[in-house]
Amino acid sequence: MAPAKKGILERLEAGDVVIGDGGFVFALEKRGYVKAGPWTPEAAAEHPEAVRQLHREFLRAGSNVMQTFTFYASDDKLENRGNVLQFTGQQINEAACDLAREVAGEGDALVAGGVSQTPSYLSCKSEDEVKAVFKKQMDVFVKKNVDFLIAEYFEHVEEAEWAVHVLKMSGKPVATSLCIGPDGDLNGVSPGDCAVRLVKAGAQIVGVNCHFDPMTCVKTVKLMKEGVERAGLKAHYMVQPLAYHTPDCNRQGFIDLPEFPFALEPRVVTRWDVQKYAREAYNAGIRYIGGCCGFEPYHIRAVAEELAPERGFLPAASEKHGMWGSGLDMHTKPWVRARARRDYWEKLKPASGRPLCPSISTPDSWGVTKGHADLMQQKEATSEEQLKQLFKKAEAND
Amino acid sequence: MAPAKKGILERLEAGDVVIGDGGFVFALEKRGYVKAGPWTPEAAAEHPEAVRQLHREFLRAGSNVMQTFTFYASDDKLENRGNVLQFTGQQINEAACDLAREVAGEGDALVAGGVSQTPSYLSCKSEDEVKAVFKKQMDVFVKKNVDFLIAEYFEHVEEAEWAVHVLKMSGKPVATSLCIGPDGDLNGVSPGDCAVRLVKAGAQIVGVNCHFDPMTCVKTVKLMKEGVERAGLKAHYMVQPLAYHTPDCNRQGFIDLPEFPFALEPRVVTRWDVQKYAREAYNAGIRYIGGCCGFEPYHIRAVAEELAPERGFLPAASEKHGMWGSGLDMHTKPWVRARARRDYWEKLKPASGRPLCPSISTPDSWGVTKGHADLMQQKEATSEEQLKQLFKKAEAND
Amino acid sequence: MAPAKKGILERLEAGDVVIGDGGFVFALEKRGYVKAGPWTPEAAAEHPEAVRQLHREFLRAGSNVMQTFTFYASDDKLENRGNVLQFTGQQINEAACDLAREVAGEGDALVAGGVSQTPSYLSCKSEDEVKAVFKKQMDVFVKKNVDFLIAEYFEHVEEAEWAVHVLKMSGKPVATSLCIGPDGDLNGVSPGDCAVRLVKAGAQIVGVNCHFDPMTCVKTVKLMKEGVERAGLKAHYMVQPLAYHTPDCNRQGFIDLPEFPFALEPRVVTRWDVQKYAREAYNAGIRYIGGCCGFEPYHIRAVAEELAPERGFLPAASEKHGMWGSGLDMHTKPWVRARARRDYWEKLKPASGRPLCPSISTPDSWGVTKGHADLMQQKEATSEEQLKQLFKKAEAND
Amino acid sequence: MAPAKKGILERLEAGDVVIGDGGFVFALEKRGYVKAGPWTPEAAAEHPEAVRQLHREFLRAGSNVMQTFTFYASDDKLENRGNVLQFTGQQINEAACDLAREVAGEGDALVAGGVSQTPSYLSCKSEDEVKAVFKKQMDVFVKKNVDFLIAEYFEHVEEAEWAVHVLKMSGKPVATSLCIGPDGDLNGVSPGDCAVRLVKAGAQIVGVNCHFDPMTCVKTVKLMKEGVERAGLKAHYMVQPLAYHTPDCNRQGFIDLPEFPFALEPRVVTRWDVQKYAREAYNAGIRYIGGCCGFEPYHIRAVAEELAPERGFLPAASEKHGMWGSGLDMHTKPWVRARARRDYWEKLKPASGRPLCPSISTPDSWGVTKGHADLMQQKEATSEEQLKQLFKKAEAND
Repeated sequence: MAPAKKGILERLEAGDVVIGDGGFVFALEKRGYVKAGPWTPEAAAEHPEAVRQLHREFLRAGSNVMQTFTFYASDDKLENRGNVLQFTGQQINEAACDLAREVAGEGDALVAGGVSQTPSYLSCKSEDEVKAVFKKQMDVFVKKNVDFLIAEYFEHVEEAEWAVHVLKMSGKPVATSLCIGPDGDLNGVSPGDCAVRLVKAGAQIVGVNCHFDPMTCVKTVKLMKEGVERAGLKAHYMVQPLAYHTPDCNRQGFIDLPEFPFALEPRVVTRWDVQKYAREAYNAGIRYIGGCCGFEPYHIRAVAEELAPERGFLPAASEKHGMWGSGLDMHTKPWVRARARRDYWEKLKPASGRPLCPSISTPDSWGVTKGHADLMQQKEATSEEQLKQLFKKAEAND
Repeated sequence: MAPAKKGILERLEAGDVVIGDGGFVFALEKRGYVKAGPWTPEAAAEHPEAVRQLHREFLRAGSNVMQTFTFYASDDKLENRGNVLQFTGQQINEAACDLAREVAGEGDALVAGGVSQTPSYLSCKSEDEVKAVFKKQMDVFVKKNVDFLIAEYFEHVEEAEWAVHVLKMSGKPVATSLCIGPDGDLNGVSPGDCAVRLVKAGAQIVGVNCHFDPMTCVKTVKLMKEGVERAGLKAHYMVQPLAYHTPDCNRQGFIDLPEFPFALEPRVVTRWDVQKYAREAYNAGIRYIGGCCGFEPYHIRAVAEELAPERGFLPAASEKHGMWGSGLDMHTKPWVRARARRDYWEKLKPASGRPLCPSISTPDSWGVTKGHADLMQQKEATSEEQLKQLFKKAEAND
Repeated sequence: MAPAKKGILERLEAGDVVIGDGGFVFALEKRGYVKAGPWTPEAAAEHPEAVRQLHREFLRAGSNVMQTFTFYASDDKLENRGNVLQFTGQQINEAACDLAREVAGEGDALVAGGVSQTPSYLSCKSEDEVKAVFKKQMDVFVKKNVDFLIAEYFEHVEEAEWAVHVLKMSGKPVATSLCIGPDGDLNGVSPGDCAVRLVKAGAQIVGVNCHFDPMTCVKTVKLMKEGVERAGLKAHYMVQPLAYHTPDCNRQGFIDLPEFPFALEPRVVTRWDVQKYAREAYNAGIRYIGGCCGFEPYHIRAVAEELAPERGFLPAASEKHGMWGSGLDMHTKPWVRARARRDYWEKLKPASGRPLCPSISTPDSWGVTKGHADLMQQKEATSEEQLKQLFKKAEAND
Repeated sequence: MAPAKKGILERLEAGDVVIGDGGFVFALEKRGYVKAGPWTPEAAAEHPEAVRQLHREFLRAGSNVMQTFTFYASDDKLENRGNVLQFTGQQINEAACDLAREVAGEGDALVAGGVSQTPSYLSCKSEDEVKAVFKKQMDVFVKKNVDFLIAEYFEHVEEAEWAVHVLKMSGKPVATSLCIGPDGDLNGVSPGDCAVRLVKAGAQIVGVNCHFDPMTCVKTVKLMKEGVERAGLKAHYMVQPLAYHTPDCNRQGFIDLPEFPFALEPRVVTRWDVQKYAREAYNAGIRYIGGCCGFEPYHIRAVAEELAPERGFLPAASEKHGMWGSGLDMHTKPWVRARARRDYWEKLKPASGRPLCPSISTPDSWGVTKGHADLMQQKEATSEEQLKQLFKKAEAND
């Protein structure tokens, strides 16, 4: 056995940079193992080689955390899928823990068991019922002895608090990450107030993941940090944003963009965008820095390369990457060689190759009357009636 | 043992659709196993699990061809890499064959041994010397008993002819694919004339790969087909384009775009773009339809889904994909559910999220005086002198 | 003599829509009579036929106000021009009054004498000195018996207050218009507070002109209105925005955009944009609705056409304009005839025809460090030194 | 009386630059005197002061030609207008001649009588009938003793030939200008062949006007010149393009762009674009250089400023214009002063301020099946039936 690794809190307390991993559901959707819509992680049991390989790529890229691939793996979520699954929730969660542990063992990474928001909360089940759902996943994490726990992708701080209450029972460190932007959670609780509530609930690490682009997420975590400090509390901070440019998002994030989830390609950030983000996050005092949907291994490597001076080393995958494009310096064409420098890539404004497309979109949205109206206008006669009924139903339920 | 599979020519003669695979060097660069610049495939020997996994994803996505990961694996290319490699060319080529064969055995796919353009030709070595380079790779393919051979990514038809001459000695079917656009090869030989020369050299399948976007590649293969038919010859046709929108390319393709190779993200095609491409290629009479740089497994799946009516079945990976976004039909928000239909995705003009960026670029270029001048203007004083010298040197060599 | 026209306050108190005129300095710059940079109105004396014609076009388009062409016609401003002028400030101001009166007499328009911000204030002259400058112009307006007075284009509310104090001495109605956006004046006084101060100083009409696009200006006037109402005061409101789309402006408005003033063309609003603006302004309770830089006669006509239901009539120039494109209904091509309808023009997202250009810019800016840094980066070696000196000098003076 | 001016042919034979004027119908539409759709020039009689002023602005900007404002002033065109006109065709044509002559007398400009394509030709009237229409306008030009004649804006070279035949009867120099692009006239006659036919018909000056952007027009005239020279003939060349960027036009030019004619604003060229165009035209050997729709006086001034070294003087209106932005050199903000230089404006890529809009459009089009299909898709149910009928009718007439 190797000597015990430094724990997550030890690292953060020592001021170490902890690099998170990237976005499993989006990466595995593109690889053919996750279905967009349900977004459930049965691949952990069905196709373990695919999940293992993705863990390994993030590890090589510099990740210090292997999150169990258990997003949306609560029983209530798995059940509401259209298809019958071959595996039970317990089996999926256990398989995910085994894969994360196996690959974590290949390098300097910890295993984090993860829970996320539940259909039970959204359909207004009781606090006890919702907590029972989290408890079931946590029991697996405890049994499999993960290193710490993450409650992530919560749109409502209240549900995240409940998750923290449950996860704290494990005695393990707890991180919590909301999928909110600077305007706060879906009930309008500000990032600062959200963070204070989570810290009070017992989370040692707080931050945001998903729903917004890197710079917006850093900005939101800054607001959280200000809130926590204003309240005289203390915490560590994490950020795991989208790998998409989303200047046009409203409060509900990229879900409401017309391109979600099947035409987000033109928004994907470059490795150079990620280096700027990593620096910005570091400068903001955030030490747990990773990614969410859209973050591929090379994006995580860019975090590790940007912060190599602070960490003192490059990740394994940098054996296959010249810093700032230096791999081009032997190209046969001089104008391609001329791209082998930092200045070139930092200043480049990359074209979309899509002159018939706009550069931003108007988000679809429930609350925003105008978006609603536009949506109605864009539908043809045939689907309009159906849409109106859906809207009416939705309003009744709201 | 399974019964013998139908060969490549049998399939094409029967009018079957043969789905190619996607882009290994670009996908593995993002996963951390290939270095941009050299673009060599030593990962086949160094990290076989990563290459195997990518093969498997393309197989699941519907590919009928596992191309050996031997791009730029000629000895002259491997040698001119900066790094010392742990493996010999022979070892790399053999490992690549074994991986392709292993995964091909998991489904209905053939193994194709691949050679590509050589530094020897570009540095004006003799025909015999260049042919000896191809012969060395071919010997491995024969030893490993691949199903057919592909000579691909040639900018000069003459070198491709030489490759065909060598590969024909194997007695196996030979496909040839140039990386040219409608303007022809770098010596100005038209697509039609190129195709005629390749067919006369013995290639049974001709087409293009890489360097241009899907619709441009289909257009180029159409010109090839017209040339071949005009000459009273017969051939099968293949197309394996970039997964990038490149309306702004000049003759030398995406290499000359300022975004190559580290800021191409905004140009990545969507799955819906790929469906249009697959239909267009099919309608043009092309039956071997795949992808090159940028094509990820989900892009290949889109080819298989578009041509499912013709093929009579969906690929394995479609178990994780609702046709035309149908996976969204149970989303909680009505405006997201409204995206679960073909019409929506076909008409969407996706935004880049980058309002500070242009929609097309001016390609850097040697031949084009204006591009050259612009290039010079964009460089700072410090690198200008160096660039001038490079240009001068390049002109001397031209 | 015609019967006396209703005065400006009578109209506004009756709830009438008062349509302002458009942008003289920009329109006459394009016609060849005003120099960009100094922007002074000596054309009133030098080329009266050009100024008269522009007044007449705005009158035909529906304007109810002929503003004297006396922008930047204070003596201190005229003197600091590079060229020696043929005419005195008094002559220019008098000529401008005569032209406005002449054309106003051809229709239902009032004459408004206008003053604007002064170099004296910016160079920190005393209140008395600044007021003396305004007084000199006002004396001409009183002598020429204009119908009311406008103090417009002030970046600092304090200077506008001083102007109001002076203009009130005339006994005529006084309107005041700042060139500010939602962030307030250059000292950070909010729009609401600015408006309250101006009303308290005696202005009966308050609002904004120039510097920002139509919707931003309406938003700013709304903030003014809220401030005035919150303070328990009463006023009438005016808005005269740019005819440019400026979503990328910072606090200092379009001056800081890289395109100012010679490459603003792609930002020019369409007549349909103006109709939306006019409706938005009307709905916000603003009744004095006109335009500033970039507003051409057809833009003012669009205000008059949009508000024709409220006003009860169309302007004279509508004899040459089909509402909502109806003039196309006899075109020989059916797809052009198909454009003869409101729905078409309201929904159209017009292309720039400039795929190499971005859709927004980063404003140059003094205060914004980033803009400053970018600016420095964009300058070549040769001008960099010079720029640094300029910056240093500017900082010393700040 | 002033001494006789040099005639048009004398000037061109001496190698002088002859600067044309700009676009009357578009400029006067924006000023409120021309109706888009009919585009007829009754303003010459109805509102002579507006037409005179525009002539004068072009003269000040450097124009050497005052074209009579007689576009679409043939009797057959005037009659097919919806409105009854107050004036006869004869009166309109005579008034236009008088205005052009009056202003030409104020400077170094010649008067050119102009005819343009006729409804008679488009509705398949006989050659004699069409010629009679031209003859009627020519009689006015002869009576008013214009200096030379221009037949412009012809989509079919055949009709232009007929016009030349008629105009030659006057004994005056004849220029002919087609509204075609590099693909030739609407019957597919190439620019070179068109030019040869026009020269053979007797035109001394040939070229193109309208329908395409400046660089496309220069390219087309180059093709004309090559054709004429290849045929061993001799001619002078003219170019009067749109002031709009139209990279997305098909053969029928800007009429088919969705933005025509009421949302072309974002496409308007800057003065700097015009300087590049003037230089390009001059370098191509074209000596009669002007503008058509969208060209405002400041655009013509830009032609005169760019070619000032060749002409030896600046136009009158340059008293109000600093070359290359030099009027900004006294601005209070250093970053605005930094714009007072050629390099800045030449390199600037101006933003549209419209991030929701694309950068190019798909032209509507009759012949292009795809455009047609898209058009049909974009129409709502209600107008679809009507459109189908229109299309059917149009096809029957085609």
